[in-house]
Amino acid sequence: MIPFEEAYNTVVSKTNPLDKTEVVTLSECTGRILAQDVISDINMPPFRKTAVDGYACRISDISGSLEIIEVIPAGVMPTKAVGKGQCSKIMTGAPIPLGADCVLMIEDTRIIDENHIELIGKSTKANICELGEDIQIGDLSIEKGITILPKHIAIMAALGCHKPTVAVKPIVSILPTGDELVEPNIKPTGSQIRNSNGHQLISQVINCGAEPLYKGIVGDTREATYKAISEALDKSDVVILTGGVSMGDFDFVPEIMEQLGIQIHFDSVAVQPGKPTTFGTKGNKLIFGLPGNPVSSFIQFELLVKPALQKMMGATSLNPLQIKAPMGADYKRKRSERLAFVPVLITEQNKVFPVEFHGSAHIFVLAKANGIISIPIGVEKIENGEFVDVRPI
Amino acid sequence: MIPFEEAYNTVVSKTNPLDKTEVVTLSECTGRILAQDVISDINMPPFRKTAVDGYACRISDISGSLEIIEVIPAGVMPTKAVGKGQCSKIMTGAPIPLGADCVLMIEDTRIIDENHIELIGKSTKANICELGEDIQIGDLSIEKGITILPKHIAIMAALGCHKPTVAVKPIVSILPTGDELVEPNIKPTGSQIRNSNGHQLISQVINCGAEPLYKGIVGDTREATYKAISEALDKSDVVILTGGVSMGDFDFVPEIMEQLGIQIHFDSVAVQPGKPTTFGTKGNKLIFGLPGNPVSSFIQFELLVKPALQKMMGATSLNPLQIKAPMGADYKRKRSERLAFVPVLITEQNKVFPVEFHGSAHIFVLAKANGIISIPIGVEKIENGEFVDVRPI
Repeated sequence: MIPFEEAYNTVVSKTNPLDKTEVVTLSECTGRILAQDVISDINMPPFRKTAVDGYACRISDISGSLEIIEVIPAGVMPTKAVGKGQCSKIMTGAPIPLGADCVLMIEDTRIIDENHIELIGKSTKANICELGEDIQIGDLSIEKGITILPKHIAIMAALGCHKPTVAVKPIVSILPTGDELVEPNIKPTGSQIRNSNGHQLISQVINCGAEPLYKGIVGDTREATYKAISEALDKSDVVILTGGVSMGDFDFVPEIMEQLGIQIHFDSVAVQPGKPTTFGTKGNKLIFGLPGNPVSSFIQFELLVKPALQKMMGATSLNPLQIKAPMGADYKRKRSERLAFVPVLITEQNKVFPVEFHGSAHIFVLAKANGIISIPIGVEKIENGEFVDVRPI
Repeated sequence: MIPFEEAYNTVVSKTNPLDKTEVVTLSECTGRILAQDVISDINMPPFRKTAVDGYACRISDISGSLEIIEVIPAGVMPTKAVGKGQCSKIMTGAPIPLGADCVLMIEDTRIIDENHIELIGKSTKANICELGEDIQIGDLSIEKGITILPKHIAIMAALGCHKPTVAVKPIVSILPTGDELVEPNIKPTGSQIRNSNGHQLISQVINCGAEPLYKGIVGDTREATYKAISEALDKSDVVILTGGVSMGDFDFVPEIMEQLGIQIHFDSVAVQPGKPTTFGTKGNKLIFGLPGNPVSSFIQFELLVKPALQKMMGATSLNPLQIKAPMGADYKRKRSERLAFVPVLITEQNKVFPVEFHGSAHIFVLAKANGIISIPIGVEKIENGEFVDVRPI
């Protein structure tokens, strides 16, 4: 049994970026890991332009009436220079005509007659965006390795990054093992239970931008298990087994892993829930054995598998945003020899409450929780009001 | 100009759920809005089962050696009752045999000979999950109206919800307007600029679970604009125009909206950025006019369009999680007559810093920010250390 931090560091250090990229469209790239730097091919703004609808004129002229000499829509170049006592009517985003050094906002002006306006107020700001004030040709605007979110798209579009290069999605085989499992469309009888965390893992894999490969439940025979793992190793970058990794008689998975040339780096982690978590590698391929209980499996995927998938895709940050918030109640536990991850609810009032949790088989806890907190080894109690780090789920 | 809260309430109250649903697979449902209650068709656990690998026996017998009478794998029903001085070897998840009232964890036992074991420790917990202790037939486990996340999937799978009914995605037409616009694959010349917020809106629409419909840039003529809006109204549930809604000469969109029978509820909001935001309805269809600047457009989509799309899909909560965190620096502004939304960076140390922001045309601000804070009307300063509500982006 190794400490969780060591397990995490082992997984991350044994994971290598796939270094495979593909080109997608702007509409397809959200949620993907950017595999190129976004470098500007233009100055922004590309010309001096007005920030407002109004009248471009000379700041020295604003006290008198101004003759309108031209109308400049957005998308059209001015044809006349603005002289003394003159102005050009101009739309937001349009280029500033020569001679002008400010734009009177349309709301701050009054129409005198068809060809003349005047400022109502006493002064005006320039209301001009200078050429290249936001970015210049060759500037780096977004570094590779980020997860592309909607907030990045306007920048990519503006700078001409219309076919972004992104990391290829790692293929992740999901192998739920166990004769007791039936698929969710079957009503279980006798000692059967439905395969729930296989499907949960598919959703988790999709949610972190990778590609799940699922071929059904693997029966509890040595042959079926060997064949399933062997084929999964051939066809995918990561193999996740779930169930079959605790100490029971029928849990021959670790032995099969060794037969297949998989180097096992750890098979037990001082963490709760999720102690029987296994991790191995074969060349650049990663093999995880996650606990059969859906809550344990969910949490260990988030903690260990997700950072590995992100590193495979070349992500520069593997650490999700954590929120600091105060506990809304005391938390106590009797045994403190393992690092514990506890599902919690962060309320709208920003208080953190542990969610009632009967143990790792109690799958309903996740639906009530919106975060996970960690309780360090040796800590038995967290007091009401104490601040904790919450990882949103 | 109306207060932001009034604009928000108007949008939400004028939006009706589409009440259209479809059936998808478990692998497809993540990110969709659940349109059915998830009711259990089974008890969980469906039988008394062991929580651990070990030996099922009688608690009164644990001080002596125990004869192994049977091996019970997961997925197999026991065939023998456990009597005095006896035990059955049992795998995690397997049914408890008659007669047994506890399970000794395998790690806490010692093998005496082929047929006998004994407990090494002094006592044991029961290690038994009782029938129906987590959920009973007919219990409601997940209410409709949530956004399906990976954390819900195991529950849905376990309870037989293998073809969930979800809300149909609203179709959202995106119409960037303006003769100055060129698509991102074109290098702009003269007074042209690239269409950036059209593509940003596509990404935002996808990201909140709706379906974008994009047919290209709409030219700045009355005819093109009329035709584009008219067709979009026919083919979609929501129409978003971007650009063309401020006070310039060529901004005839509000007039066209009226010609098309669109009732305009507001055309200006006391919010910064995003003042020239327009909202109208025609029957159950919603029409938004968002500012042409990408930062304004981004923020107004998040604040006003996203809740409307969520309500259309029957979501029960329209309020995103907000984080409370302390400012890491002073924030000051000169004018405070509008509610302001300011892009901020929440650091790993959980401090909030406003991101340098040259105004709403400065699109790079979003890439540097990971949240937005709101500054109420009348507030000119927030002090270092003061707690603020941050909406993650």
